[in-house]
Amino acid sequence: MPEVGVVLGSDSDLRKIASGLDLLNRLGIENEVRIISAHRTPKEAFDYAEKAKTRGIKVIIAVAGLAAHLGGVLAAATTLPVIAVPINAGSLNGLDAVYASLQMPPGVPVAVVGLDNMKNAALLAAQILALDSENIARQVTEFREKQRQEVLKKDSQLQKVGYQSYLEDNFNSK
Amino acid sequence: MPEVGVVLGSDSDLRKIASGLDLLNRLGIENEVRIISAHRTPKEAFDYAEKAKTRGIKVIIAVAGLAAHLGGVLAAATTLPVIAVPINAGSLNGLDAVYASLQMPPGVPVAVVGLDNMKNAALLAAQILALDSENIARQVTEFREKQRQEVLKKDSQLQKVGYQSYLEDNFNSK
Amino acid sequence: MPEVGVVLGSDSDLRKIASGLDLLNRLGIENEVRIISAHRTPKEAFDYAEKAKTRGIKVIIAVAGLAAHLGGVLAAATTLPVIAVPINAGSLNGLDAVYASLQMPPGVPVAVVGLDNMKNAALLAAQILALDSENIARQVTEFREKQRQEVLKKDSQLQKVGYQSYLEDNFNSK
Amino acid sequence: MPEVGVVLGSDSDLRKIASGLDLLNRLGIENEVRIISAHRTPKEAFDYAEKAKTRGIKVIIAVAGLAAHLGGVLAAATTLPVIAVPINAGSLNGLDAVYASLQMPPGVPVAVVGLDNMKNAALLAAQILALDSENIARQVTEFREKQRQEVLKKDSQLQKVGYQSYLEDNFNSK
Amino acid sequence: MPEVGVVLGSDSDLRKIASGLDLLNRLGIENEVRIISAHRTPKEAFDYAEKAKTRGIKVIIAVAGLAAHLGGVLAAATTLPVIAVPINAGSLNGLDAVYASLQMPPGVPVAVVGLDNMKNAALLAAQILALDSENIARQVTEFREKQRQEVLKKDSQLQKVGYQSYLEDNFNSK
Amino acid sequence: MPEVGVVLGSDSDLRKIASGLDLLNRLGIENEVRIISAHRTPKEAFDYAEKAKTRGIKVIIAVAGLAAHLGGVLAAATTLPVIAVPINAGSLNGLDAVYASLQMPPGVPVAVVGLDNMKNAALLAAQILALDSENIARQVTEFREKQRQEVLKKDSQLQKVGYQSYLEDNFNSK
Amino acid sequence: MPEVGVVLGSDSDLRKIASGLDLLNRLGIENEVRIISAHRTPKEAFDYAEKAKTRGIKVIIAVAGLAAHLGGVLAAATTLPVIAVPINAGSLNGLDAVYASLQMPPGVPVAVVGLDNMKNAALLAAQILALDSENIARQVTEFREKQRQEVLKKDSQLQKVGYQSYLEDNFNSK
Amino acid sequence: MPEVGVVLGSDSDLRKIASGLDLLNRLGIENEVRIISAHRTPKEAFDYAEKAKTRGIKVIIAVAGLAAHLGGVLAAATTLPVIAVPINAGSLNGLDAVYASLQMPPGVPVAVVGLDNMKNAALLAAQILALDSENIARQVTEFREKQRQEVLKKDSQLQKVGYQSYLEDNFNSK
Repeated sequence: MPEVGVVLGSDSDLRKIASGLDLLNRLGIENEVRIISAHRTPKEAFDYAEKAKTRGIKVIIAVAGLAAHLGGVLAAATTLPVIAVPINAGSLNGLDAVYASLQMPPGVPVAVVGLDNMKNAALLAAQILALDSENIARQVTEFREKQRQEVLKKDSQLQKVGYQSYLEDNFNSK
Repeated sequence: MPEVGVVLGSDSDLRKIASGLDLLNRLGIENEVRIISAHRTPKEAFDYAEKAKTRGIKVIIAVAGLAAHLGGVLAAATTLPVIAVPINAGSLNGLDAVYASLQMPPGVPVAVVGLDNMKNAALLAAQILALDSENIARQVTEFREKQRQEVLKKDSQLQKVGYQSYLEDNFNSK
Repeated sequence: MPEVGVVLGSDSDLRKIASGLDLLNRLGIENEVRIISAHRTPKEAFDYAEKAKTRGIKVIIAVAGLAAHLGGVLAAATTLPVIAVPINAGSLNGLDAVYASLQMPPGVPVAVVGLDNMKNAALLAAQILALDSENIARQVTEFREKQRQEVLKKDSQLQKVGYQSYLEDNFNSK
Repeated sequence: MPEVGVVLGSDSDLRKIASGLDLLNRLGIENEVRIISAHRTPKEAFDYAEKAKTRGIKVIIAVAGLAAHLGGVLAAATTLPVIAVPINAGSLNGLDAVYASLQMPPGVPVAVVGLDNMKNAALLAAQILALDSENIARQVTEFREKQRQEVLKKDSQLQKVGYQSYLEDNFNSK
Repeated sequence: MPEVGVVLGSDSDLRKIASGLDLLNRLGIENEVRIISAHRTPKEAFDYAEKAKTRGIKVIIAVAGLAAHLGGVLAAATTLPVIAVPINAGSLNGLDAVYASLQMPPGVPVAVVGLDNMKNAALLAAQILALDSENIARQVTEFREKQRQEVLKKDSQLQKVGYQSYLEDNFNSK
Repeated sequence: MPEVGVVLGSDSDLRKIASGLDLLNRLGIENEVRIISAHRTPKEAFDYAEKAKTRGIKVIIAVAGLAAHLGGVLAAATTLPVIAVPINAGSLNGLDAVYASLQMPPGVPVAVVGLDNMKNAALLAAQILALDSENIARQVTEFREKQRQEVLKKDSQLQKVGYQSYLEDNFNSK
Repeated sequence: MPEVGVVLGSDSDLRKIASGLDLLNRLGIENEVRIISAHRTPKEAFDYAEKAKTRGIKVIIAVAGLAAHLGGVLAAATTLPVIAVPINAGSLNGLDAVYASLQMPPGVPVAVVGLDNMKNAALLAAQILALDSENIARQVTEFREKQRQEVLKKDSQLQKVGYQSYLEDNFNSK
Repeated sequence: MPEVGVVLGSDSDLRKIASGLDLLNRLGIENEVRIISAHRTPKEAFDYAEKAKTRGIKVIIAVAGLAAHLGGVLAAATTLPVIAVPINAGSLNGLDAVYASLQMPPGVPVAVVGLDNMKNAALLAAQILALDSENIARQVTEFREKQRQEVLKKDSQLQKVGYQSYLEDNFNSK
């Protein structure tokens, strides 16, 4: 039974968030991925959010670009936490999606993460679920520690070989 | 029976659009003014748009600031033309409302006018209704001609008295 | 006899709007496509707008990038509704065309749709004409329903196969 | 024992968020309000976040303007969910605080709400805590319903008296 | 007989440019000040520019805010140099007027000066006329030298009295 | 003997303005093209502007990107009209060069044209020189007329063959 | 003998930086404050920077708004470190001054601090001088520690009295 | 023993700054290059900055993109001068990194150079070290002179061969 519902306004954004979905799975979080458009299927969007709680969903992640109303439309129909991932689609560098997601009026909150940053949406959902799940809490802690080790390892390597060799070894450039 | 439905997301924007509402009335257009929030009363917003056509509404004007989803939410539930008036509210000069109104995905159009520019929304509605109403067409033509005469008159006055006197006479400055 | 006049400021934008023109035709709307520049052929622009009504045109769509004056220049010479499609051309992401189209002074409205979004301009024109044409109204309704079905179908497929297979099947990625 | 820790980078932002703090209390959420600067008291900031979980804190709210590093600095030292409230301070309309809060690198999430929007941060925190507290869940639902009723009531009043009287009655304008 | 034609799109901008008009006069340049709107009086705008050369005008200065089409509309109808003064009017800090003035398509140039900077438009017009007028050339040179002396004098005073006294003496602050 | 001096801050911008230089030549304007950096060769920049008038230069065109100080630095050392061509170089879409060129303080004007728009700088220079040269005036008039004819011709072709064939014929697309 | 030279492009910015100048004095740094305009007194600007090193100046602070060329112009004429303080003057929130100061071409660096942030320019200058002055190093360390204590003290007070009393006590609000 | 510490928040930015690191070496400045993340390795970041002075570091250069907190986090833990190089990474043209680096609160300065401009960070560090090192001072002066000669040489070549040949010779274009 899914605890996190990931809703995309359009399947054209799916590729951009695939690695973030991978992370959600890797953290052991039950989830479902849906395509529901706030504008092309408004009833379905409303219904999804309204029934999510009863279905056992605990966190909704809304992924949308352009005039990204999806997060707000879902948040209006539920009291579950809604995380918005603004997508850089079209001409305006994604700033349209950021503004349309971020500037919700007082009374109906949406939690916005960075542009195209499904990974942070997945982690944020995990950190919320971790408040009541020791297993997820452990997964998050391990992820963060592993991530820390990777930086330390890269730093060590750079110290040892110097930036020129490092670039050649890791980025095939000279 | 109203032909134009003006919907505000919040009554805090009412003062800003009052003169535009006056213009709507002056052009002889039957209208109603409503406060319906896309986020705080989502069902009512959906219902309003869905039933508008049957009630005889021909054009909807959506007035909203911040993450201005109202125009898009209404447009998603009707095939009537929806005009959005983005409102400059909050910190971002209204650019949040512009982006959230303008960048609708292909398939669900919203017609956006300038920031806080309810007057142009009223005129645009009138120009749409004028396609099928000789009376409104005449009202629009007269308004445009009168507006033209006002510019010509100001120009004449300025030519006659010079800019210093003009400023004193019209703006109480020297 | 055309009911919608599509005016481009430059033929360099034609490719960007071709699919939107296809939609206009698919919706059964008689139209003409013209290249008239507000700056390089100003008299022709003025004449076009001034005579459009007499020629039976009901809606004008102005397509322009950079300092996109075309919509405003046409709107100044007619009381027909004028829809502007700002084009992303040049360095500023199309924000120059958005601002130059959107911020018309009170008294001369232009209806602006999203950047490069000729499809929404076509739909908006159709929704305006549908106020007085049952045929076009039906076309619009069918288009919207078909669009809704496409989203539902994609959602079903995604539910069935999962996001990894969906990406492979639809976007050739893994 | 506080469940929500509200951290301000500077006491100059306290007035802006006071009504949001009131809401936090009204929703029955135990909280503490602290002034800890990411730049002027970096060790204290790190310690606060590192020890928050052990002290029973479940959600941290970081309030900061300008180069708003506070949310990121706290998030780096804890796996609790961190909500950032970007504050409009200084010359750049708060866009500096939005960007500095929003664009966290993949791996360390921050949940951003709208500019100066402490109310939504309070509600978001409540919606997170409500996942595991029936009492808070009820408070949130009641708040949302009350908010809905207020919009409906305003709409009724506007319908009854018209916009001119409404403005006189509610905003002392004519 | 005027050599410089200053055209305002609206008399609401007149006060902002009054000191720039004073400078035009002080530099001994014959000029006329007109109110002609590109949108509300489009024929008059076209006619003005088209006949300007024959009337002896050598430089046109177009003053407009919002979607500032005036400079482009005038430039389209004449080969005289057209200087645009974008005005900060409305919500967007004048950036709408800057973009609408600056981003003219190749083939029809407009010379843009800074926001609200009628003084620089006046000086630029003078520097253009000075190419063929020793009198105006002398006026410009004297203005620049006087301006230089004023800076040197302020610097001397500041050196002598220190910044605290300087502020008290010149800005009534301590 | 050159009448127009084109100064580039860096040879990396030369390719972008080559067609504009071609136009300058085609209009029959004597010119010189120089590479002088406001920051790397400040004395040379100052000297160039200071001596330009004596050498017979009438208009200076400054071409620069990034923090484009060149126009202002040259304008500070001469009373000749200085035209700035802001170049889109680096990360900020050229907005850095626009702002650095446009917002000159009152007292030292620079005439700014659109981003990368050397063609309009060439035409603007020609329109300035045309005030005192019948030959250049004729060249400008012919250019503008030819440009007008090209638009009319494209419009005719489009009318005749339709947009699909037009795209195939002119842009190799279908 | 001054070690830090503070140069303002205009005395209109002096008030904004007065408290920053106070800090410079409080840190015990010998300084001089000058008004020299990059555009109105270009030779003086060049001379000042060129001779600064010989006169014993070690750090130059350039204070300017609008198209803030001053930092770059001074940096072009010296190899001393130049700090720029962009000033919010005019319509564009100071973003013009930020871009004009920040985006220096590779080869001539300018060190930019935040908008209107003369205090940080003073501290940065102090931190540079502290590399070779134990006295200034001590002043900086004491300033930082004192600043830290002030935050801790405010935090203590807030903890003790609560945010409502804190606001009444410190900001006269309720 | 390194005098300059270059810290990258991520090795993904290393390639962008490689030529700037080359310059640092060419100027004869002892340096070390480290990968330390403000968010993924916060303790290491704090420790690095806190111990830098004792280890003999005199200037720290922080290289980071997105919500670039690194400069501020390091500056908070040391009184050494910290130079930030904002990196254009992600969707927002690097403006996120600029704002997050630039708008430090009064009391903790960061010296920001242009986007991706590691070369200027290297030169700025050199100019700071040159205050107390005749060798580095000489290196900087020679670099600047050489840079000046290169511009003069390019200008000579352009004068001699004309822009068309220059483009062919230097950029392989015609």
